[in-house]
Amino acid sequence: MGDKPAGGTGHPALKDVAIGLDAKGQRDEFDSMGQVQVPADRYWGAQTQRSLQHFSIGDDRMPKPVYHAYGYVKKAAALVNAKAGRLEEWRADAIVKAADEVIAGKLDDHFPLFVWQTGSGTQSNMNVNEVISNRAIQLLGGELGTQKPVHPNDHVNMGQSSNDSFPTAMHVATVLALDDQLLPALDRFATSIEAKANQWMDVVKTGRTHLQDAVPLTVGQEWSGYAAQIRDAADNVVRSRDGLYRLAAGGTAVGTGLNAPQGFSRAIAGQIADLTGKPFVTAPNKFAAQGSLDAMVASMAAVRGVAIACMKVANDMRWLASGPRCGLGELLLPANEPGSSIMPGKVNPTQCEAMVMVCIQVIGEDNTVAFAGSQGNFELNAMRPVIISNALHSIRILSDMCDKMRTFSIEGTELNRKRIDATVDQSLMLVTALAPVIGYNKAAAIAEAANADGSTLREAAIKAGVDESTFDQTVDPSKLVGEGVAGA
Amino acid sequence: MGDKPAGGTGHPALKDVAIGLDAKGQRDEFDSMGQVQVPADRYWGAQTQRSLQHFSIGDDRMPKPVYHAYGYVKKAAALVNAKAGRLEEWRADAIVKAADEVIAGKLDDHFPLFVWQTGSGTQSNMNVNEVISNRAIQLLGGELGTQKPVHPNDHVNMGQSSNDSFPTAMHVATVLALDDQLLPALDRFATSIEAKANQWMDVVKTGRTHLQDAVPLTVGQEWSGYAAQIRDAADNVVRSRDGLYRLAAGGTAVGTGLNAPQGFSRAIAGQIADLTGKPFVTAPNKFAAQGSLDAMVASMAAVRGVAIACMKVANDMRWLASGPRCGLGELLLPANEPGSSIMPGKVNPTQCEAMVMVCIQVIGEDNTVAFAGSQGNFELNAMRPVIISNALHSIRILSDMCDKMRTFSIEGTELNRKRIDATVDQSLMLVTALAPVIGYNKAAAIAEAANADGSTLREAAIKAGVDESTFDQTVDPSKLVGEGVAGA
Amino acid sequence: MGDKPAGGTGHPALKDVAIGLDAKGQRDEFDSMGQVQVPADRYWGAQTQRSLQHFSIGDDRMPKPVYHAYGYVKKAAALVNAKAGRLEEWRADAIVKAADEVIAGKLDDHFPLFVWQTGSGTQSNMNVNEVISNRAIQLLGGELGTQKPVHPNDHVNMGQSSNDSFPTAMHVATVLALDDQLLPALDRFATSIEAKANQWMDVVKTGRTHLQDAVPLTVGQEWSGYAAQIRDAADNVVRSRDGLYRLAAGGTAVGTGLNAPQGFSRAIAGQIADLTGKPFVTAPNKFAAQGSLDAMVASMAAVRGVAIACMKVANDMRWLASGPRCGLGELLLPANEPGSSIMPGKVNPTQCEAMVMVCIQVIGEDNTVAFAGSQGNFELNAMRPVIISNALHSIRILSDMCDKMRTFSIEGTELNRKRIDATVDQSLMLVTALAPVIGYNKAAAIAEAANADGSTLREAAIKAGVDESTFDQTVDPSKLVGEGVAGA
Amino acid sequence: MGDKPAGGTGHPALKDVAIGLDAKGQRDEFDSMGQVQVPADRYWGAQTQRSLQHFSIGDDRMPKPVYHAYGYVKKAAALVNAKAGRLEEWRADAIVKAADEVIAGKLDDHFPLFVWQTGSGTQSNMNVNEVISNRAIQLLGGELGTQKPVHPNDHVNMGQSSNDSFPTAMHVATVLALDDQLLPALDRFATSIEAKANQWMDVVKTGRTHLQDAVPLTVGQEWSGYAAQIRDAADNVVRSRDGLYRLAAGGTAVGTGLNAPQGFSRAIAGQIADLTGKPFVTAPNKFAAQGSLDAMVASMAAVRGVAIACMKVANDMRWLASGPRCGLGELLLPANEPGSSIMPGKVNPTQCEAMVMVCIQVIGEDNTVAFAGSQGNFELNAMRPVIISNALHSIRILSDMCDKMRTFSIEGTELNRKRIDATVDQSLMLVTALAPVIGYNKAAAIAEAANADGSTLREAAIKAGVDESTFDQTVDPSKLVGEGVAGA
Repeated sequence: MGDKPAGGTGHPALKDVAIGLDAKGQRDEFDSMGQVQVPADRYWGAQTQRSLQHFSIGDDRMPKPVYHAYGYVKKAAALVNAKAGRLEEWRADAIVKAADEVIAGKLDDHFPLFVWQTGSGTQSNMNVNEVISNRAIQLLGGELGTQKPVHPNDHVNMGQSSNDSFPTAMHVATVLALDDQLLPALDRFATSIEAKANQWMDVVKTGRTHLQDAVPLTVGQEWSGYAAQIRDAADNVVRSRDGLYRLAAGGTAVGTGLNAPQGFSRAIAGQIADLTGKPFVTAPNKFAAQGSLDAMVASMAAVRGVAIACMKVANDMRWLASGPRCGLGELLLPANEPGSSIMPGKVNPTQCEAMVMVCIQVIGEDNTVAFAGSQGNFELNAMRPVIISNALHSIRILSDMCDKMRTFSIEGTELNRKRIDATVDQSLMLVTALAPVIGYNKAAAIAEAANADGSTLREAAIKAGVDESTFDQTVDPSKLVGEGVAGA
Repeated sequence: MGDKPAGGTGHPALKDVAIGLDAKGQRDEFDSMGQVQVPADRYWGAQTQRSLQHFSIGDDRMPKPVYHAYGYVKKAAALVNAKAGRLEEWRADAIVKAADEVIAGKLDDHFPLFVWQTGSGTQSNMNVNEVISNRAIQLLGGELGTQKPVHPNDHVNMGQSSNDSFPTAMHVATVLALDDQLLPALDRFATSIEAKANQWMDVVKTGRTHLQDAVPLTVGQEWSGYAAQIRDAADNVVRSRDGLYRLAAGGTAVGTGLNAPQGFSRAIAGQIADLTGKPFVTAPNKFAAQGSLDAMVASMAAVRGVAIACMKVANDMRWLASGPRCGLGELLLPANEPGSSIMPGKVNPTQCEAMVMVCIQVIGEDNTVAFAGSQGNFELNAMRPVIISNALHSIRILSDMCDKMRTFSIEGTELNRKRIDATVDQSLMLVTALAPVIGYNKAAAIAEAANADGSTLREAAIKAGVDESTFDQTVDPSKLVGEGVAGA
Repeated sequence: MGDKPAGGTGHPALKDVAIGLDAKGQRDEFDSMGQVQVPADRYWGAQTQRSLQHFSIGDDRMPKPVYHAYGYVKKAAALVNAKAGRLEEWRADAIVKAADEVIAGKLDDHFPLFVWQTGSGTQSNMNVNEVISNRAIQLLGGELGTQKPVHPNDHVNMGQSSNDSFPTAMHVATVLALDDQLLPALDRFATSIEAKANQWMDVVKTGRTHLQDAVPLTVGQEWSGYAAQIRDAADNVVRSRDGLYRLAAGGTAVGTGLNAPQGFSRAIAGQIADLTGKPFVTAPNKFAAQGSLDAMVASMAAVRGVAIACMKVANDMRWLASGPRCGLGELLLPANEPGSSIMPGKVNPTQCEAMVMVCIQVIGEDNTVAFAGSQGNFELNAMRPVIISNALHSIRILSDMCDKMRTFSIEGTELNRKRIDATVDQSLMLVTALAPVIGYNKAAAIAEAANADGSTLREAAIKAGVDESTFDQTVDPSKLVGEGVAGA
Repeated sequence: MGDKPAGGTGHPALKDVAIGLDAKGQRDEFDSMGQVQVPADRYWGAQTQRSLQHFSIGDDRMPKPVYHAYGYVKKAAALVNAKAGRLEEWRADAIVKAADEVIAGKLDDHFPLFVWQTGSGTQSNMNVNEVISNRAIQLLGGELGTQKPVHPNDHVNMGQSSNDSFPTAMHVATVLALDDQLLPALDRFATSIEAKANQWMDVVKTGRTHLQDAVPLTVGQEWSGYAAQIRDAADNVVRSRDGLYRLAAGGTAVGTGLNAPQGFSRAIAGQIADLTGKPFVTAPNKFAAQGSLDAMVASMAAVRGVAIACMKVANDMRWLASGPRCGLGELLLPANEPGSSIMPGKVNPTQCEAMVMVCIQVIGEDNTVAFAGSQGNFELNAMRPVIISNALHSIRILSDMCDKMRTFSIEGTELNRKRIDATVDQSLMLVTALAPVIGYNKAAAIAEAANADGSTLREAAIKAGVDESTFDQTVDPSKLVGEGVAGA
């Protein structure tokens, strides 16, 4: 593509300049506090550099998806501002082009800031403003560091404040992460479990309640429960997006919309919806949208719900696979790697363990999000960076973990039919089927007698006077598992 | 009402006997493990007594609403069993009458068990079974302790297990608590805030972000945000009921429905829906419904969301009321009581503090519920008592607190107009309105100059070359607050 | 005891009047805000009544041990004030007598306030002041409601503020609860486990890591680990008292000690130490002591540590007892009650389940305490009631639970030797002993071969070329368990 | 340094080969499960590669300090094994040299594994074994991938299991992080606060309790409380090391010490103590040391305590700096960067906000650690990676944050004396000083009168009949602040 012609307008033309700054050493940049030197090969400006200096804390960087989402916000703002005649088309074009590069992740190396920064996310917003400004300046043939002809605040940030744009980017980033990462991963995860459930729907096994032997069910029924938990948890994630679809953009500094033109809220939300293909709308109350992060907290709670469901599945699987000879031993998990540095031949349920740890991590991160969500004051909840970094992190590790566990554990799991069949025959709890016939108390006595002397249930029942044919007709495990998954 | 005639059937007639046992000392009761002595003036039986002996831990009793909800379950089961011809009408009648008394709270004194008991809630289920059994026996003229003619397991518990009936009672109790306590309290709470918001919609005040002076908004806008947070949080509570509407009843011991007749699941859910007027349905997957408590966890997360919103409101109010002379001083909270044992005349934001503490308590209880929710194994999550006791407790204290804070703090709150007006005039952040006119950097220089030398913004602006009339037309607080609550 | 003679001093004499107010209806009381009617048979005054009206939230009452501890504070203050000549002896005598009754719990019915109240605990402090004042007035033959001759603020609260006395009472109450409840319960708990460990020190069993079969250890070694965890956790509780020994008393309103005489801090701490027999000292920095509740948070963390240790023990026990026929089946727990309302003869690990729930409750309460501990502002952390109520509750239920589990589960636990012995013989992990002889990789191949074809380890080893005598000498479970509990 | 001569022993000589593998493509490695290809320029072997394939979950890598600590463990084991004659000197020398490089971080690029892996940390242990093995092979002139002459299991892992060595490395890494990062940072932090406290010890200011005006104290007293909180929290961190000093090494697979020689536990702990200069000892009970991670949980609780103290300081500072014109306005924080993208001239308390977020993050990570700490089973707590990664992360960010906040906020903070002085004069709570003279109730009436009509306290007092000179002598703020920091 050649340079975009500026025609006879006298406006600078949009050039086709590849991303990158072929410069060494430092470049002067400035902001309202004065001059700052930045690395010459980076697009960022003075405020980014100040933040880098003041907030190099640990290794935690603001997640890149926040910037990608911010790209949509800046692009949408430029389009709306241009349409409204507030921003010149040629400036808007340059901003849009740079924003597209941000969205595509092509400028990721220019967003170095740490999570631990100002609570409003202003520094990351300014980082975006500065990078887009300088990239746009470059595209327009201007000089970096001059803030001309595209100013980070006056043009890139036009009609916006960090106070409304950062939570907007948070919502966009979270929706995209849920839709692109977590929900598909959960669907694949549940599908793989359902495949196993279907495969094993008729394999009768011993049920366990309180960890103790209970009446039988089928392996498929048990696994259907796992899948149902995952599906329900995913549904709650889906529903939690409703709050996230409401965007703060247009509230500007404190929710009143100062310095944004009338109609800006709806216009920018509509624009973001168009660009992302997600049903974003403007938040009906901007004071709530900027003073709280309640929708983020609610969405994170739904993510936590996924963790809680996944933890049950992982725990059940590793317990059912315990053994190989001295445990429950019903499942045979794939042996992905040697399990022990000292015990040769040991194979461990490592995917399940990793899943449990991921789930506990997510639950802890949800605690952090909730706590931070409670700490808003007046027109701003200044706990945004900690909330978005935890939310996106939880979504990420849970999504990846589901994929890994599906691939390396669930799909390769096999049944130890010998063990499963043996326990069904041994279980004393089949006596439950007799209770409606002979009464609870008499049935209990039979079970206790069998337990005490090690006899089979049949032996104990007949000894207690139960008719042989009654026993055999009533106590048939395959008839005790009901039909389907919805109970009686 | 006289005794219900048994006609020529030879069945015992339902007598009109007032609640109560006119007996002293101990009565013999028994279960499958043998005889136990219980207080003669109590309806409970052997298993309740065993639990009392083994689990007297702290003072935490299973919340009474669990028993009231269980009353619905037992009544519905009796009706369904009778309709299906499995339970004699006269027995069902007696059970139904006793269950109605349970529902009405008339037998509360006969449910003494502790929260800390078996994780399935079996002991509380048996407590209900025993009390209804004995009360029904009394109503039928039988002898207490004989389990005849109404047996706690064979008749009252017919077609049920604790494993499906206890989570059913949990869901019913939680829905009722949300509908009867929390949601109405939240509606009243939000309404009272909205009344204030409307009253103060035109009072311009200084906005605050990062606790620092920001551009103005109106008091009404600020309070509209509080109300919106509460309304949104309440909406999430409403939506969280969907999971609770799904009942485990009919899964019996492990989810297969063993010992319950075909169709029992749908029938009992429908019956409970009829009795309570709530849209309960049978859970589509009983293995998930009994192996997890995910719907409880999700509902508790919504309750936590309420706490997070309430905490913001309470914190804002107490900060805005800080003073009376050395704080922000914008709000005048009702002086309900002397605030200090040593400082005469001190008045403190005690309702707000109590609200903050309640909210933190709820957040902690949500942590407990989530943790417990993750600890299910196989066909049972045996963490039920801890989950239901925390959930109902959180709902209770949050509901009561909202009512108290509404009555004793919100409704009586007044504005300190003098202070509010004074701060608006002083705020340097009105300079923001100039930024679109003169540019961000120049505007910043003006604000900094005013801050440095203590001059007013107007003085500093004019000194910096801003035209007087431009300043006066642009920097008018009342014009900077936008319109309504949805931003620009 | 007769009335204490006032001699010729003209002072009212201390009468011997039994506790109780023989009056019906209401009595007028007043405070700085005016008159209030209180129940005539209660000692409390106007401020208590106001709090009752404004804070009836849920059923959560300020724990009685807080009042008992406050009794010590009031008694100590009266003694110190009298000694310093600030308070007349006869007034001090009356206050001391009433305070002794508070300490002894004899006035518990007169402390009705809710947890959810002012965050400083002022209302409970005033409740104590009012009750002691009125009881002292009664003892001195005065008229209740007159605040004469013993005034709740001027005399009972002399030299104190709620701001320093409430955290003092919190520390005293917590130390007493730890010393009287938790630490002895933990000692009994650990002792009962140690008894089992000693009894079973030579019973070889299969070790399990990752839930999978591992090399053997003895049952006694395993239980020694449980006891060590409990002992270590108790040690941390012991050490956490150090922070609690530091008392805020003497800081009065904001930590400066205003209105308390010089030396009051040390004197009252010394007096409280004398009265309680605990090494209380004055906090070296009163601004930290009143602005934070860090010592409470640290102590609660130690209590949480107990919960974490107890949870491991309870979980291990219930898993090892899983079965009776289809689980691990190594332990036989006492059958305290029927386990199921539907499955006859079922016995469940209910004490263990209750313990797990108690532990999760404690962990959640610790979350609440930590959160609340972070919410102090300036000269006061106004989250005191929520912190003390959770701390004392956790201590209480954990103490009771340890006693119950000890009595009803640990002491009656037996081994299923048949099952234990069988698993040791089956375990493939005995191959580990061969690794130093034949190398890790070859040993692994043997274990895998045995696992694949179901042969014994011996068969597979010999097939792989291991010498019979080498195998038999090397792979002897009883020689693989080392010596003692400290490893190699 | 030249190659270490092997003399006439026939043993391979230790060569002086720089770190690095000059190879491209893939190299064959193997383990007990077979062959695996690894990148030819990496030292790791088959098991590391398997883990990379199965556990690429998110971006969370096992923290490098775990490997550095593991270097000490491997070095110590080699030295002890060599001394005992179990490991040839020349092999030990090679292992020691490679381990020294691990300790120094020179091999960091060869430790790529993710946090989310096997719960025992076996994969990271094997990563260390493989890297040291291959590096030692390289140093000895052998061929990588042959496991000869230094085998990862038989030699590098000699006398160890992951089960005892990983928690050993956790303890070592945590102690080093506390000693090298957190404790010095806290000391610097407290010292900088103390410097301010000393500087401002005589500046009288208005105290605030419940956010409301209270009696005065000095700025220095207030800041002394901050420092005391930090010092106390640091002391608890110091004490929490005691549990960490106890090492599991020598317990091997399940705590019995199988395959480690007698005395190994004490020897290796002593060796690690020598190498690190820290008082490590062998854990008295290896079953507790491997089955639990209680010492880690306790230490993390102490770190949480630091967060809670820091959060109070940060919150106080940002509130006291609120304004500049419409807030409390007592402190002037350094203006490090422009605060707003829309509001020119705005300066925000960004260091304080970052600190609050870091603290909330740490509190959430503590929740994760505690939860994970409760999930041990039998001879292993398989939640190690999640625990160590959170613990080290919390220590890291808290340390860095304290340094940043000290440098960029505390050290540059100044007082707004004008504002501080003005509020002292306005506060009505000075009336407290009158209470001992005229009684609480009368003093209250004066404060209320002044509040009602806006008069000064002096005016209201005189109007109420207080003698002028009494007032002036009693109500002198500078006399009401007591002496020092320990109260009265």
